Amino acid sequence: MRSFRKALSLQVKGRMAFVNITPQVEAALRESRIQEGLCLVNSMHITSSVFINDDEPGLHEDYARWLEQLAPYDPSPERYHHNRTGEDNGDAHHKRQVMGREVVVAVTGGNLDFGPWEQIFYGEFDGNRAKRVLIKIVGE
Amino acid sequence: MRSFRKALSLQVKGRMAFVNITPQVEAALRESRIQEGLCLVNSMHITSSVFINDDEPGLHEDYARWLEQLAPYDPSPERYHHNRTGEDNGDAHHKRQVMGREVVVAVTGGNLDFGPWEQIFYGEFDGNRAKRVLIKIVGE
Amino acid sequence: MRSFRKALSLQVKGRMAFVNITPQVEAALRESRIQEGLCLVNSMHITSSVFINDDEPGLHEDYARWLEQLAPYDPSPERYHHNRTGEDNGDAHHKRQVMGREVVVAVTGGNLDFGPWEQIFYGEFDGNRAKRVLIKIVGE
Repeated sequence: MRSFRKALSLQVKGRMAFVNITPQVEAALRESRIQEGLCLVNSMHITSSVFINDDEPGLHEDYARWLEQLAPYDPSPERYHHNRTGEDNGDAHHKRQVMGREVVVAVTGGNLDFGPWEQIFYGEFDGNRAKRVLIKIVGE
Repeated sequence: MRSFRKALSLQVKGRMAFVNITPQVEAALRESRIQEGLCLVNSMHITSSVFINDDEPGLHEDYARWLEQLAPYDPSPERYHHNRTGEDNGDAHHKRQVMGREVVVAVTGGNLDFGPWEQIFYGEFDGNRAKRVLIKIVGE
Repeated sequence: MRSFRKALSLQVKGRMAFVNITPQVEAALRESRIQEGLCLVNSMHITSSVFINDDEPGLHEDYARWLEQLAPYDPSPERYHHNRTGEDNGDAHHKRQVMGREVVVAVTGGNLDFGPWEQIFYGEFDGNRAKRVLIKIVGE
């Protein structure tokens, strides 16, 4: 069994944004030279997500509006007790749970084994800070 | 390390439905002859889910009603900008995020290492089309 | 390839609670002696979750309130048809879908490969019963 690790660094402008990181994951997979196995991609932070969906700007606008309805930004400590800590990002910890922390992708024949529209996104909900995404590939 | 891949084909009638695919995953595991490892099961599409819960029809009715409240079907491009593309499935991309893309199941002694009620479901949110589910098993 | 399995037993008081199980997962990883690979941690039950977020009590209060809004406890069979079965935990099956069943964590150099604030939680939504969490580690 072989394993390969790579951490991506990102700094997203604005509180909320979605970044297609598929090319970086594919580059890591090529670098790993692993042909068959599993590829884990996860946010190393707890106010952001890694998820798979469509690379379509209208959809990303929809996600942003919908997540804001489900867990509105509110820096006060009344809505989010978490903000009693001095943070203002209680909403981001909720948005991240809806969108998820990680994806696990099959590796087949040296490629990400994807359906026709699958793309990997980093979802930022508390931006303007340096963040990292972990890629861990195991296989042969 | 061994690896095994199988894609299931499904065509679900109606927009939303839940299909128990545990027997097909168990058959793939037997075919793989892998005894110890991990089994990834994921939708290859971005308007459907693979998730684990109870095989109870009342619960599935509840999920359908609840997901319709969280992200109602609406073909107009006002609620879902994604529908500006000519699609009418903006809602399905949201429902899928709530229910998730994939599950990873432990393989122990040649079996899916499940608690008493765990069953694997394919959740369709934009049906009447041919779709695929990927099974990838790695181990020994 | 090596594999290691351990089931944790938990009995949480009250309907809803969040328990930090990171120390138990780290102990299992040490016991496995696996240095590089993947660590799956999943609830073996369908009314509870395993997820990664912050160990901050205010945030856990926020999650409990928010999940109660998204899927309120209601023992009647009107809101949750699932409760026609005699159960009163329809809400718990929904809360679990929001928070997720499982996490997959990279293992690097014999440690859980975590960002600065990542901690693993068991999320109980139908407590006062004996439950189990499965840890499966594969690697070398």
